[in-house]
Amino acid sequence: MYYPGLKGITAVETALSEINGEKGNLFYRGVPVEKLIEKHSFEEVVYFLLSGKKLDENGIHVLNDRMKEARAINENTKNVLDQFIHQQSLIASIRSAISCLDESRDHWPINEMEVVDVIAKLPTIIAYLYRRKRGLEPVEPKHHLSHAANFLYMLFGEEKTEKEAAALEAYMILTAEHGLNASTFAARVVASTQSDIYSAITAGIGALKGPLHGGAPSGVLTYIEEVQGSTVEEVVKNKIVQNEKIMGFGHRIYQVKDPRAKALQQLILKMDPIPDWAEFLLDVEQQTETWLNQLKPGRNLYANVEYYAAAIMKAIEIPAELFTPIFCSSRIVGWSAHIMEQSRNNVIFRPQAKYIGS
Amino acid sequence: MYYPGLKGITAVETALSEINGEKGNLFYRGVPVEKLIEKHSFEEVVYFLLSGKKLDENGIHVLNDRMKEARAINENTKNVLDQFIHQQSLIASIRSAISCLDESRDHWPINEMEVVDVIAKLPTIIAYLYRRKRGLEPVEPKHHLSHAANFLYMLFGEEKTEKEAAALEAYMILTAEHGLNASTFAARVVASTQSDIYSAITAGIGALKGPLHGGAPSGVLTYIEEVQGSTVEEVVKNKIVQNEKIMGFGHRIYQVKDPRAKALQQLILKMDPIPDWAEFLLDVEQQTETWLNQLKPGRNLYANVEYYAAAIMKAIEIPAELFTPIFCSSRIVGWSAHIMEQSRNNVIFRPQAKYIGS
Repeated sequence: MYYPGLKGITAVETALSEINGEKGNLFYRGVPVEKLIEKHSFEEVVYFLLSGKKLDENGIHVLNDRMKEARAINENTKNVLDQFIHQQSLIASIRSAISCLDESRDHWPINEMEVVDVIAKLPTIIAYLYRRKRGLEPVEPKHHLSHAANFLYMLFGEEKTEKEAAALEAYMILTAEHGLNASTFAARVVASTQSDIYSAITAGIGALKGPLHGGAPSGVLTYIEEVQGSTVEEVVKNKIVQNEKIMGFGHRIYQVKDPRAKALQQLILKMDPIPDWAEFLLDVEQQTETWLNQLKPGRNLYANVEYYAAAIMKAIEIPAELFTPIFCSSRIVGWSAHIMEQSRNNVIFRPQAKYIGS
Repeated sequence: MYYPGLKGITAVETALSEINGEKGNLFYRGVPVEKLIEKHSFEEVVYFLLSGKKLDENGIHVLNDRMKEARAINENTKNVLDQFIHQQSLIASIRSAISCLDESRDHWPINEMEVVDVIAKLPTIIAYLYRRKRGLEPVEPKHHLSHAANFLYMLFGEEKTEKEAAALEAYMILTAEHGLNASTFAARVVASTQSDIYSAITAGIGALKGPLHGGAPSGVLTYIEEVQGSTVEEVVKNKIVQNEKIMGFGHRIYQVKDPRAKALQQLILKMDPIPDWAEFLLDVEQQTETWLNQLKPGRNLYANVEYYAAAIMKAIEIPAELFTPIFCSSRIVGWSAHIMEQSRNNVIFRPQAKYIGS
């Protein structure tokens, strides 16, 4: 029997995340994501997802130090990046950069610290490429800042407020891991040949780049713009007539509101004052849900993580061009944890192809 | 139900190749590979696998011209390659090179001619990286030579004999496509997000690099060396006692002799005179099969394509370091044909992960 897209087929056993689509729950290693963003840093979530160890003070200090040490990229890496910055799209050049980072010889079994170094370096690579593409001087990492705060600092050349850094950090924690999406699956397939983390992460970025996965995140902004020039009712009705999706609404797994969207919404509601555009987005969400419920009854179309990701990104004044790269900088944690899980209990992926030629 | 490695699960429908493991047959689009190596060039097989069209004179001339035009790499690409040549292993730098080649903006639907260009350029990239790594001056492609003959010319800086070029060409045709192995599957998973050919081929190379796939081809040479210092009987018995595989023997699909091994064997037997080492390899094969049949009865362990690939490579004096890169330069055809097949009838790959945490 042929399973298009392998829908419904269990391809791996995992201890990394559990998704309950009916209740709208997401757990990393048994802990609800809401608790993780409330009590823990991005670095702690990296430690927790990769190692599965309890967050004891010593372990997390070692990891924190390692990530800070690994942040900077050397002159050689910069020379490599300089060669293709202007030839490639930003996300393509991030894929190339990770591939070029690979200087290692002994790849198997996978070394947890090598993985941590790549996670730590990725924001520096993204910020370097982003600034150089715009003709701006790259900014070196600042040692005392957290991973998320330093990422913002390197992107914009100035420190952002604590609230802004916290918002980015919450987004990065919430999108770090989400089961067997196409990019995570691609990374596991590559790792299953006993290849290396650079090959596997490069494959993950390649898959994330596709518009059916992470490659079309500015769709929400387009929707908001359309609404601004019209009304929610009109835009939604038009899209339904033309059989178009409404970007930022609905999720293939969640039957109720996406828990990540909920958590990001809470974060925005706690802002004081709530920015005008945030009020507007909350209003558009409510109106859209009402119309969708009326016009597509029983379909359970609620705002998803992309809708609130766009809201958070707008809050921190991050341009649309950086949405997929930033998603990449958080999801690399999930890829890495899955690659390590694959390496610990490896079976090479070799499904069947059914011949249907004449 | 959990399917480790997705064994037995049909993940795609394909018109590209058909493998009959019991009879030992391999067909590309309905044509036996033996007929393809007898009557057709590598370029013709590229055309046939990618397009599915009959080999009319006009179509193949257009493709031939395109591949010749696309062979050369420009100064910009050379500058990029120069940056990481000495930091990375040869196969890692090939992966990086393909990622860096990506200058395109419109990726979907996939453009057949863009795919052809990458296939045409890959030998030039491999030869450039190989020679620069050894401190040798790179060699520009020669326009009048065939794809395979030009590949040898660029690697060694001098034209090889027609017979040598024909042997490489036969190897490259025989290994161009083989269903859903891990690298082809990885390429299809990446393509399924509507990503681009560079992302998908980069994923394929990353998977091929792993020692469980294409990354450990020199194992056969090690076996031959062990036999030279002892006897087949002794080496085989020792390996069985230590539960080690005998490299170059047995195949997970073929119950009889691998049709690709058979075809390469015929090629060697037609050499006049048959080189001494080839006589030796044929003798080692026979002895190994006899001992395996006696010590592992019913397991059907015959020489596979890797055994004869090593023989052919030795005939053309290709060093072990180039085995995986050359495999990559043939299998890229299968990846490309699968990526195009995926793009024509796309369903994104998103299997399930079963949560087994506490």
